[in-house]
Amino acid sequence: MAYVKDFKWTKGMKVEDFVGSLGSVGFQSIELGKAVDTIIKMKETGAKIFFTFSSNMVTSGLRGFFAQLVKLKMADIIVTTVGGIEEDIMRAFGEKFIIGGFRADDVELYEKGLNRVGNIFVTNKSYERFEEIIRNMLKKLYQKQKTWTVSDMLREIGLMIEDENSILYQAAKNNVPIFCPAITDGAFGFHLFMFKQDNPDFVVDVVKDFANILFSTSQDERKGSICLGGGVSKHHAIFACLLNGGLDYAVYMTTSTEYSGSMSGATTSEAKSWGKVKDESDIATVIGDVTITFPLVMSKVLEELSKKGIIKAD
Amino acid sequence: MAYVKDFKWTKGMKVEDFVGSLGSVGFQSIELGKAVDTIIKMKETGAKIFFTFSSNMVTSGLRGFFAQLVKLKMADIIVTTVGGIEEDIMRAFGEKFIIGGFRADDVELYEKGLNRVGNIFVTNKSYERFEEIIRNMLKKLYQKQKTWTVSDMLREIGLMIEDENSILYQAAKNNVPIFCPAITDGAFGFHLFMFKQDNPDFVVDVVKDFANILFSTSQDERKGSICLGGGVSKHHAIFACLLNGGLDYAVYMTTSTEYSGSMSGATTSEAKSWGKVKDESDIATVIGDVTITFPLVMSKVLEELSKKGIIKAD
Amino acid sequence: MAYVKDFKWTKGMKVEDFVGSLGSVGFQSIELGKAVDTIIKMKETGAKIFFTFSSNMVTSGLRGFFAQLVKLKMADIIVTTVGGIEEDIMRAFGEKFIIGGFRADDVELYEKGLNRVGNIFVTNKSYERFEEIIRNMLKKLYQKQKTWTVSDMLREIGLMIEDENSILYQAAKNNVPIFCPAITDGAFGFHLFMFKQDNPDFVVDVVKDFANILFSTSQDERKGSICLGGGVSKHHAIFACLLNGGLDYAVYMTTSTEYSGSMSGATTSEAKSWGKVKDESDIATVIGDVTITFPLVMSKVLEELSKKGIIKAD
Amino acid sequence: MAYVKDFKWTKGMKVEDFVGSLGSVGFQSIELGKAVDTIIKMKETGAKIFFTFSSNMVTSGLRGFFAQLVKLKMADIIVTTVGGIEEDIMRAFGEKFIIGGFRADDVELYEKGLNRVGNIFVTNKSYERFEEIIRNMLKKLYQKQKTWTVSDMLREIGLMIEDENSILYQAAKNNVPIFCPAITDGAFGFHLFMFKQDNPDFVVDVVKDFANILFSTSQDERKGSICLGGGVSKHHAIFACLLNGGLDYAVYMTTSTEYSGSMSGATTSEAKSWGKVKDESDIATVIGDVTITFPLVMSKVLEELSKKGIIKAD
Repeated sequence: MAYVKDFKWTKGMKVEDFVGSLGSVGFQSIELGKAVDTIIKMKETGAKIFFTFSSNMVTSGLRGFFAQLVKLKMADIIVTTVGGIEEDIMRAFGEKFIIGGFRADDVELYEKGLNRVGNIFVTNKSYERFEEIIRNMLKKLYQKQKTWTVSDMLREIGLMIEDENSILYQAAKNNVPIFCPAITDGAFGFHLFMFKQDNPDFVVDVVKDFANILFSTSQDERKGSICLGGGVSKHHAIFACLLNGGLDYAVYMTTSTEYSGSMSGATTSEAKSWGKVKDESDIATVIGDVTITFPLVMSKVLEELSKKGIIKAD
Repeated sequence: MAYVKDFKWTKGMKVEDFVGSLGSVGFQSIELGKAVDTIIKMKETGAKIFFTFSSNMVTSGLRGFFAQLVKLKMADIIVTTVGGIEEDIMRAFGEKFIIGGFRADDVELYEKGLNRVGNIFVTNKSYERFEEIIRNMLKKLYQKQKTWTVSDMLREIGLMIEDENSILYQAAKNNVPIFCPAITDGAFGFHLFMFKQDNPDFVVDVVKDFANILFSTSQDERKGSICLGGGVSKHHAIFACLLNGGLDYAVYMTTSTEYSGSMSGATTSEAKSWGKVKDESDIATVIGDVTITFPLVMSKVLEELSKKGIIKAD
Repeated sequence: MAYVKDFKWTKGMKVEDFVGSLGSVGFQSIELGKAVDTIIKMKETGAKIFFTFSSNMVTSGLRGFFAQLVKLKMADIIVTTVGGIEEDIMRAFGEKFIIGGFRADDVELYEKGLNRVGNIFVTNKSYERFEEIIRNMLKKLYQKQKTWTVSDMLREIGLMIEDENSILYQAAKNNVPIFCPAITDGAFGFHLFMFKQDNPDFVVDVVKDFANILFSTSQDERKGSICLGGGVSKHHAIFACLLNGGLDYAVYMTTSTEYSGSMSGATTSEAKSWGKVKDESDIATVIGDVTITFPLVMSKVLEELSKKGIIKAD
Repeated sequence: MAYVKDFKWTKGMKVEDFVGSLGSVGFQSIELGKAVDTIIKMKETGAKIFFTFSSNMVTSGLRGFFAQLVKLKMADIIVTTVGGIEEDIMRAFGEKFIIGGFRADDVELYEKGLNRVGNIFVTNKSYERFEEIIRNMLKKLYQKQKTWTVSDMLREIGLMIEDENSILYQAAKNNVPIFCPAITDGAFGFHLFMFKQDNPDFVVDVVKDFANILFSTSQDERKGSICLGGGVSKHHAIFACLLNGGLDYAVYMTTSTEYSGSMSGATTSEAKSWGKVKDESDIATVIGDVTITFPLVMSKVLEELSKKGIIKAD
């Protein structure tokens, strides 16, 4: 039986010891500790990891961290929404997002050409510059071939990027497919449409990409998922695994709670009813904003895996 | 200046009077009153209404209500996720979903072939029967033509359904397009993939559907959105309107809050920074589970519009 | 087995039928239906009802409704915080609270002498006028006796009020004790202190009031609780019942969720571990703002009890 | 203008650098950074710090950390609820709380004599042993004097405790008063009542304690508050400061959101309307479970203050 232990601060404390202590504190910090253990288990057993996140997280500074995780082999398959793709590209080409406030005057922001995402502001100019970049990329893609699955397209775009901190760049370089089941839901979709106006034989094949995610792992392979937030990204990864023998491990980190029956708030316990995951020790649901909880969990995971020689960190 | 007024119950009270009173009570009931006013304004000014919802809401008994709203001309364009499509079809073909509990034993449910969505259980058999239905539908679609946009496909499926309470049926009958930007994210996607295995020339064109939603309204037309929950459905509607002159009215009803910067929690105030909506009196954000808040709002809206002769209710 | 049923709007729908339908819709509307059933059971079995709420609800227009419920014998013991007492008195003496907005400019409000409680504004003048009222009341109390328990004091104040819509008035008239375990936590506490400066023998005895709540029901009596929000009010009622044989029924309505271990978010399921309540059919937890959910639940309860002749409604 | 910066993990990272990075990541991590800055400012300007928390946090392992903070002079006045007092004493006398799970079977727990607080279990035996301890303490208090304010009583109890990790012990030793405006709301209250049965002249004077908190700081002194969670504790500190010239700094850390108008969810922005706090740079509201967010914030604060020589840490 495990007991609650008092947290004590020590000068110069390391993150790994800090997170290690939190696991015996209480409420969500206990769940955070379970998340650490579950992810370590995924790597130790050689599970393929489905990593999912929503676009607002890429607007935040988690973006470079996600890229680092790909480089460190912590993600085998990525599922995200198209806004995240767009903002990763913007950042790779030098755009900067502004730290603002939740209670800014929204009409004033509009007049200044600033678009608010929570407490982050994105300038109109960032979107305008993105237009040119994406158009050039589509031209190059089209020159290569006329029909593309989304994941192939995103890999190719990744190869056009030169930024160590880009998710697309690291994914392309490390052979991690990025699935984006709602590819038209954003500026990217608009430019796909515009490009297709001029080039009607340019085809995006989403149905084939379903086969790609399905066959990205075999029935026999162990499978784990780390789902940040909810929505289509979370559901797509879980559903693909469900069809393919089920998940062995699942970590969900979200701000939503289950009371409205939404996918965003669906817990790892609910997942057991779907046969998706099996045992209490292989799942964890952490409630809280991932800009705080996720770096905490992963910093501890990376330290442990590094000590065990499972990942190579400099 | 408006003042808080005490709510008083009266025997045999009607919903319209009940909701009318709530508008002066406080906190979310005030916002609920604003949502009523904003939606009435949408109809009075002839705005085209984008109506978005997530699939869990179709699992609930809101499904038949959504169908009724389409019949009553309260939605001009629908955006949803594929799970909602699947469950609308299941229900149309006689499947029943079970009222359960949030704290059911999930391993036990799994053993009984029950899948939990919050406090609702769906049987494995419901999914198995869906398989046959959808396969037959895809065959008929393919016989008609080989390339389909999602919205055309969903309209055609609606015409194959005979159920007054089906969203797809009512949408098809009332010329309301249903957009589903992540069509492969569910059992439907799996069956599309299976069908394409046998019929490689069967093509789903998502890029063309982006044009369809963009051109579903003109730049000049007034536009309003009623977004239940968040995710891709909410974003897709807002984004399409943004490209097309902006929203004039917006009502968001959600359980998420804005503090994590997610689309699900994004408020109508944030929308003003994007130029999406303009004035305080034309927007409303109501926090709470839509299985309660939405029927309340719409019951009042329908009574008022019916009195004004704007909708025809029996 | 109960199944999800589609909600359908009908013209001129009554609240009782509306809420009756919601019980088969899904997610929180199902829980809302369970709350209705549980409260009806309380009255049918003659349980004593502990009714608790927090002060923000009295700032809202629920205040007059609470008074009505007391009149209709729906509450046998009330537990609340002192802010609610103060605002009930203010309203009884003619103060009005303003309907504002959550995103008002708070510095501007300050300059205008407006104090924000969510989207409700209270003027500085309302607090100033309260000062005089409460001082006069304390003088009268002191003339009668020098040592007071809180519940006796609040009953006496209720008798000084002439307002059918006042909670204190109805409670005094209907012999419903009001407990307020943190009586000094507000303007009322400040005036108690000021009064005691001049009259050092004026004593408020909180320990004796603990006996009063404990003996407000007997061990043998059935006990139920309707807790709106959380905090001290909720805890105090539950704890008093726990010492006195345990609760037979419990309905919690709150916006908090359980993930942080707080009393506000504590569910009726957790209550079972404390031996407080016993069976699944005797408890209900409804998540959502009570300015919407509570009038819904109670309107249905009152209609049913009125039909059964258990309450007398005009 | 500050920009979002990518978070990057480095091997052996220290907490102070970790938290330093989070401040530029986004959403709640930005707010967390603001909380750090605001608390540092409190100490640098010599503000008196009101530190408030709810009892569930003392059930968790934050208890020993709170004690450490008192020792490090990070709290000048404490406000809490009585459950926290009880559990601090239990822990000081050797009781252990069990790490459990949120979805435990509550009826089973009841049969095993385990009481659930979120995902922490407390045994019946812990409560039984507490009974004896508290009775002895009350006897000793009574021998000393017959009338007690709550804060004097809690100081005296602190002096009876020998545990470096006890909040009451450290508070007594460091002359930090603990206010508990609802002292009867728990087992402690029950034992006060039992003791008073036998000793009717034993008096607890809550009104005098209002004077004590009011005069614990002068009008001229700078005042700051760090409020964890909400309820009576948060309100009491804010109200006392409001009467006494207003707060200069405020940090609120909570899981509640403002949409229901509750004190728990009230933001530092709302506080500006009450004249409680003044400037944007002197306030911060962090949404999330404090078992994670608070140790993060304070670890950084302590490192910085230690470097500046403002606190003495070993």
